[in-house]
Amino acid sequence: MRAGPSHEEVRRHNLGTLLRYVHVHGATSRAELTTKLGLNRSTIGTLTTELAAAGLVTERPPEETLRAGRPSLVVRPESYQVYAYALAIEVDRLRAARVGLGGKILDRRETDRPRGMQVADAVQPLAEFIHEMRRDVPEGARYVGGGLAVAGMVRRDDGMVRLAPTIGWVEEPVGEALSSELRGFEGADVGPLTVGNIADVSAMVEHSRGAAAGHDNVIYLYGDVGVGGGIIAGGRRVTGHGGYGGEVGHMVINPSGKPCSCGSRGCWETEIGEYALLELAGRANESGRDAVLGVVDAAMRGDRAAQQAVRQVGDWIGLGVGNLINIFNPEAVIFGGTLRDVYLVAAAQIRSRLNEVALPACREHVRLRTPELGTDAALIGAAELAFERLLADPLL
Amino acid sequence: MRAGPSHEEVRRHNLGTLLRYVHVHGATSRAELTTKLGLNRSTIGTLTTELAAAGLVTERPPEETLRAGRPSLVVRPESYQVYAYALAIEVDRLRAARVGLGGKILDRRETDRPRGMQVADAVQPLAEFIHEMRRDVPEGARYVGGGLAVAGMVRRDDGMVRLAPTIGWVEEPVGEALSSELRGFEGADVGPLTVGNIADVSAMVEHSRGAAAGHDNVIYLYGDVGVGGGIIAGGRRVTGHGGYGGEVGHMVINPSGKPCSCGSRGCWETEIGEYALLELAGRANESGRDAVLGVVDAAMRGDRAAQQAVRQVGDWIGLGVGNLINIFNPEAVIFGGTLRDVYLVAAAQIRSRLNEVALPACREHVRLRTPELGTDAALIGAAELAFERLLADPLL
Repeated sequence: MRAGPSHEEVRRHNLGTLLRYVHVHGATSRAELTTKLGLNRSTIGTLTTELAAAGLVTERPPEETLRAGRPSLVVRPESYQVYAYALAIEVDRLRAARVGLGGKILDRRETDRPRGMQVADAVQPLAEFIHEMRRDVPEGARYVGGGLAVAGMVRRDDGMVRLAPTIGWVEEPVGEALSSELRGFEGADVGPLTVGNIADVSAMVEHSRGAAAGHDNVIYLYGDVGVGGGIIAGGRRVTGHGGYGGEVGHMVINPSGKPCSCGSRGCWETEIGEYALLELAGRANESGRDAVLGVVDAAMRGDRAAQQAVRQVGDWIGLGVGNLINIFNPEAVIFGGTLRDVYLVAAAQIRSRLNEVALPACREHVRLRTPELGTDAALIGAAELAFERLLADPLL
Repeated sequence: MRAGPSHEEVRRHNLGTLLRYVHVHGATSRAELTTKLGLNRSTIGTLTTELAAAGLVTERPPEETLRAGRPSLVVRPESYQVYAYALAIEVDRLRAARVGLGGKILDRRETDRPRGMQVADAVQPLAEFIHEMRRDVPEGARYVGGGLAVAGMVRRDDGMVRLAPTIGWVEEPVGEALSSELRGFEGADVGPLTVGNIADVSAMVEHSRGAAAGHDNVIYLYGDVGVGGGIIAGGRRVTGHGGYGGEVGHMVINPSGKPCSCGSRGCWETEIGEYALLELAGRANESGRDAVLGVVDAAMRGDRAAQQAVRQVGDWIGLGVGNLINIFNPEAVIFGGTLRDVYLVAAAQIRSRLNEVALPACREHVRLRTPELGTDAALIGAAELAFERLLADPLL
């Protein structure tokens, strides 16, 4: 319970609000900012001038104007001059990007991650990627920080990866390991990395600028071997006390079902994850994203076993999504990771089961969606972790 | 995305913050308010003077003071002068109270609700209760509004009860029906009632001043025939797009289980609600809260059938709570309604199953609790619905 802010706090809040607006929405005229932020023209002018002086935005006349009179200046984020590094550790690959203010991916690298790869071996190529990307950074550009998205449970306070069963890591200080690896490259120190869960950061980005923009209650599902969830309720991320919330893949939905990597039995991901789909399709000897896409493609081509597998998995997806709809009464459910592809071929089955499970009032305004930003959401979201401090107080 | 507030908005915000503080915490010295709200002494003095002039608080010297010097005035909410009506429609009873600012129950009435009772018959005794309680309202006291808590799904915008399967109501404008009934009593019009879900409002009260005070991530479970949930995530209620969130009783946890009143199968409440417990205990011919307490008492006395029933229900409670812990990573789970009594006798079973299902990181800081405010939480919470407007802007 906090009392109201001082004049200086209001000013800093307004600077952050304006910068965040153009960061999320891109080029915006002063006139539109005046309307959207509910501030008067002269205040907007003062704020944009300050942000421009700090090198965070540029102001230019619009390319063309159809109205008579003095055109409203257009405010743009300095995407090429202000940047963050974004890293993602996924079950099957390691990715790195340089992301400019405004969420623009300026450069990127990617490599496979063999299953079973340990932390030390995973951070080495990521550090190498950053070292490479540094060479193309324009002179005078401002580095704001680094963010790392991991397919695992991350402690909010210090970024410790507590448990990443699908990657096989337990209690690993991955962010520190990566920072330490980077110090091996001359001048490549990226400072402390902010670490987050991949489904959480993807949800954040799909919510701010993707498939769920404008919605306050959103469930983002991220599928690979397991199933992660990023949840927005009332416009805010649901991350729980320590940052571990959203572990929807470990919601038990079939108590007499299969053992799960977490030690429990019948978790949602044992019925809808990669292993379940491949086994049902008679392809238990395969693995990975391509194998999942193989089943989806086969189902679309009419392969009976693949169709049967996709239908059964779709049925369990619908059941679990129905549960989450009853709990969150959301406007959008987004299927990310490999669930995107399964959703595309099993949508009818998913909807049918979901309609049985979800209460009519809870589901009446819900839309099922695929991500707009695809797999880039994880990278843009990782960068958001780094941009957050700048957006909270741009002149700090 | 809103820009910062004006000076006048800050002042009103501060008035509301101060009033809300004493409303929740009771008598508080100016010195403590200065610390807790982060405002200077003169601002606190101005604000309390304004609120006292509006008749919302009183200021008096402390009863006794141990320190030398001028003692800090103590600010108290005007509980006897500022009040709301609170109403609750539950499966087995109808309750009404007059609640003073500060959450003080000043007067109360209660009657049984036979199962199957329709809206028209339920609002009649509630209106009568208010009519009766009006007689004892002190002259000059200020009425701020009425709130109604219902064991059903309530549309946030207009208070329509969309579905209350355990009460047997569908699409009933209960608030309007009650207001209309009240207009039949001369001078007893209570104005528009704010309607909410009983688990939601109980959670709000246990969070602000009860068993979960100081915790930002809380799951409140309310059991009767069904199971409702009130959820606090990151300090805010999770109510979803239309207000229907928290329907944890309709999370399917046993797909091959029993049909549910909602039309689905294997919902959590089919395994842990009143009917399940009574049937397992061989008492399917009984019903109601007393019957549930009868099983709990029998289990405590060593009755084998009752113990067996409680153990099995406890196992399913643990499974569902484990699911919710994985989703919300909460600090507290509160067992309300009849689940309080079942929890007291089945705690070991619940913990054991919960520990299998919930991931260690998600459950490491969670505490299982019974409500501190008992069944009063529903009444105090219903009154909160009415106080909310006053607290948001005390001088309106």
